[in-house]
Amino acid sequence: MANLTIAREIQRKLEVARIARLSTVDATGRPHVIPICFMWDGSFFYSAIDDKPKRVAANQLARVKNIQTTPHVSLVVDHYDEDWARLWYELVRGEAELVTSQAERRQAIQRLRVKYPQYAAGMLSDEAPVVRITPVRVVAWGKI
Amino acid sequence: MANLTIAREIQRKLEVARIARLSTVDATGRPHVIPICFMWDGSFFYSAIDDKPKRVAANQLARVKNIQTTPHVSLVVDHYDEDWARLWYELVRGEAELVTSQAERRQAIQRLRVKYPQYAAGMLSDEAPVVRITPVRVVAWGKI
Repeated sequence: MANLTIAREIQRKLEVARIARLSTVDATGRPHVIPICFMWDGSFFYSAIDDKPKRVAANQLARVKNIQTTPHVSLVVDHYDEDWARLWYELVRGEAELVTSQAERRQAIQRLRVKYPQYAAGMLSDEAPVVRITPVRVVAWGKI
Repeated sequence: MANLTIAREIQRKLEVARIARLSTVDATGRPHVIPICFMWDGSFFYSAIDDKPKRVAANQLARVKNIQTTPHVSLVVDHYDEDWARLWYELVRGEAELVTSQAERRQAIQRLRVKYPQYAAGMLSDEAPVVRITPVRVVAWGKI
């Protein structure tokens, strides 16, 4: 996203956050939201279909089917604290797609394994599908 | 939701969770997701437009405008842990609307103040708009 400038302090939180919540829309226009592990590389978000237990095959997962129907997604990275002066969130609107380039997919998997020891320890297959989210707008709220 | 049975252990997590992420859809079909404070009363979720800083008036908030356009929402309550054997989430699909009954609205505000000392201490106006979410489907994943 050469056209999108994201402030350094906002990016820093995206880099270190362990979890985000990804919202997609299904074919009937209903929203879906799940927690995801992800990696922010300064330009894109990457999230893999990993080896955590799934009830359906990768291509039948709601998030995968949904982005193939409509690529519009939202992602929120946030912090909850009982001291509400310390609350913050970063809301990202973006466009998601399955990565088709094998080189890009492998690099994302490699970086996800660097960020998450759980992935390095075997929870992420070399063949895992990877979703790329291109940010279109980022809004920050609270104590950034 | 007389027709929806939610297991006791699933409800317990909904009752004590301090935060959820609410996903709505805007008029152009794009999803929106934000962290919310909320209260589960065994039948409905209630969330107030509280006195945390807002950039726009209550009726211009994305979540409010969105549910007036399409009532379909999703809500996720989850737990992140570096021990991935302890991960869990509960995904609720539901229908949202602004509460119009003053008695219901006042009761929800009272209960939100019981759950959140921050609200009791003044972060929630007597006149706050309240959103009610009627669950349609609840899916649990992980270590419930």
